[in-house]
Amino acid sequence: MQLLNQTLAAIKPLDEEAMARAQAHLDDLTKPPGSLGTLETIARQLAGIKGEVPRRLSRKTHILMAGDHGVVAEGVSAFPQEVTPQMVLNFASGGAAINVLARHAGAELVLVDIGVAAELPDLPGLLKRKVAAGTANLARGPAMTREQAIAALEVGIEVANEKIAAGSELLGIGEMGIGNTTPSTAILAAFSGLPVEKITGRGTGIDDQRLQLKINAIRQGLEVNRPNPEDPLDVLAKVGGMEIAGMAGVILAGAASRVPVLIDGFISGAAALVATRLAPGAKEYILASHLSEEPGHAATLELLGLKPMLTMQMRLGEGTGAALGMTMVEAAIKIYHEMATFSQAGVSGALDS
Amino acid sequence: MQLLNQTLAAIKPLDEEAMARAQAHLDDLTKPPGSLGTLETIARQLAGIKGEVPRRLSRKTHILMAGDHGVVAEGVSAFPQEVTPQMVLNFASGGAAINVLARHAGAELVLVDIGVAAELPDLPGLLKRKVAAGTANLARGPAMTREQAIAALEVGIEVANEKIAAGSELLGIGEMGIGNTTPSTAILAAFSGLPVEKITGRGTGIDDQRLQLKINAIRQGLEVNRPNPEDPLDVLAKVGGMEIAGMAGVILAGAASRVPVLIDGFISGAAALVATRLAPGAKEYILASHLSEEPGHAATLELLGLKPMLTMQMRLGEGTGAALGMTMVEAAIKIYHEMATFSQAGVSGALDS
Repeated sequence: MQLLNQTLAAIKPLDEEAMARAQAHLDDLTKPPGSLGTLETIARQLAGIKGEVPRRLSRKTHILMAGDHGVVAEGVSAFPQEVTPQMVLNFASGGAAINVLARHAGAELVLVDIGVAAELPDLPGLLKRKVAAGTANLARGPAMTREQAIAALEVGIEVANEKIAAGSELLGIGEMGIGNTTPSTAILAAFSGLPVEKITGRGTGIDDQRLQLKINAIRQGLEVNRPNPEDPLDVLAKVGGMEIAGMAGVILAGAASRVPVLIDGFISGAAALVATRLAPGAKEYILASHLSEEPGHAATLELLGLKPMLTMQMRLGEGTGAALGMTMVEAAIKIYHEMATFSQAGVSGALDS
Repeated sequence: MQLLNQTLAAIKPLDEEAMARAQAHLDDLTKPPGSLGTLETIARQLAGIKGEVPRRLSRKTHILMAGDHGVVAEGVSAFPQEVTPQMVLNFASGGAAINVLARHAGAELVLVDIGVAAELPDLPGLLKRKVAAGTANLARGPAMTREQAIAALEVGIEVANEKIAAGSELLGIGEMGIGNTTPSTAILAAFSGLPVEKITGRGTGIDDQRLQLKINAIRQGLEVNRPNPEDPLDVLAKVGGMEIAGMAGVILAGAASRVPVLIDGFISGAAALVATRLAPGAKEYILASHLSEEPGHAATLELLGLKPMLTMQMRLGEGTGAALGMTMVEAAIKIYHEMATFSQAGVSGALDS
């Protein structure tokens, strides 16, 4: 709890002066003001976070949290639970989508077993920080104790702090956990009050029958647990998951150390909801990457006040969208530093009109 | 006309067998089927175009067509016409947004003066293929003769053919031309029948007064010229522009030589409308990159039946969205070739459900 409280207390607002300076430079580049849209927004946000737009990101880290979910007993997923550890092995041997896309983005990949329901061997790049071997079934009672939720948040903070201390200047988050769109949907429902059937999706691709089981499990979980939306730790513990808590911890640590964090799809969006309910100021340190196909994701981004960069119709997770988003952040940095100004290029500005 | 006709005749359907083979491989990769969305769609489309998904794109070329527009006399743009040649100089010296983003994508940048209303000096990377020194004012009569429109299409075909002969495996298109959202809107209105006031935007950032002048100019242009939507060359000549024709030529040449072409925003979308009205089969060779802030762009993509990858709120042109899209095409290729299959990774597939 001490690490969490210290981290929350360390989150400060963006540097408004640095943002104004960055904006003035952006408006002097050879393009109509604002015409590069999100690339300009990113550059300005980086200035607010770092005090200036960095010349380059010397080190980028993608943190993938893996955890299991007792709620799979309700039949909410098309994949069996053993796929979670199998996929961790796949990540460790480099064969998953996130391996390919993290390489594409030039980011190191860090795997964290924060709550997998199986013993994993020692693997290259795998941090063993298991809080518990999976959550309890949220449809029947609390998924985690409050202590477990805090411990999982603090694992995320610790891992992020280690990477930031090692020089990482941009963090991405992602997850693996069979069944984890179910707690994510429950978190969104708890915070937003949106009707469960409107925000429940097919995750990795379930049929109508499983979709109904999933909706029932979420509704039952909310009824049984009555998570208090005014108490984010209560929501996280009762209907969340350890990888979701871990990702929320990464966001909080990034915000506390002024390092931007790229979120991925629906599940990392749920983590961002938790993080920003714990510390509203953390929002300014988050970058949204893609709009997932999961129906709850658009509502999540709207609640967060964030706009996605990519509409690639993806719904895989792992942080695949966040990794693609990293290439956009690099593009924004290059735009800021490499474009000519109007005076340098001898280009006329807009007419007075 | 002969080159255009040869090119149109050479456009053939995609290789369905290659696409089915690619789909089978995609479905065997360690992810739920279809969960990588557009990355999978791109890989499948590349297989259909090339006969297999290429291991890498050894050479990527971004073709930027520059041309001027007589309709600026109606006060449709906030920037004076001399900005077109000034920006070509900026492109040649490497200081514009497209220089930065083409480098980011690892693409060579080719500049084409297809219709700038000024004499340009010899510049590195600039091809001088001027059809005329700007179009006539489309609000008062035809922007081009039918012969000029064909000549501009053929310039695009020739430039693309040269680059394809030199080994380019992916083409991007973009443009520079003060006032060119005006002819683009007129083209969209002519083909779609959509009301002009619904699809006319602020381009590089005009105020309400100029917006009304622009709407009036487009309406008047459609009334004076009565372009025949059944005759794409008639539409292109009467209310189009030379850089739009040139980009349409690049699309047709790409389709004829089985090389994919990434389009950019609204203006290259208008070029894609012209190309696909001339040869409906060309559509299969086009990749949409971003959704522009121009209000007519969403309608254009819908008419084309294409979905954008990026929602970066950009409205600059030059091909900046297409350049960013190139990095997504590379990501799709890597996903296809670098991911492990279920059997390789020992991961369980979906449950029968």
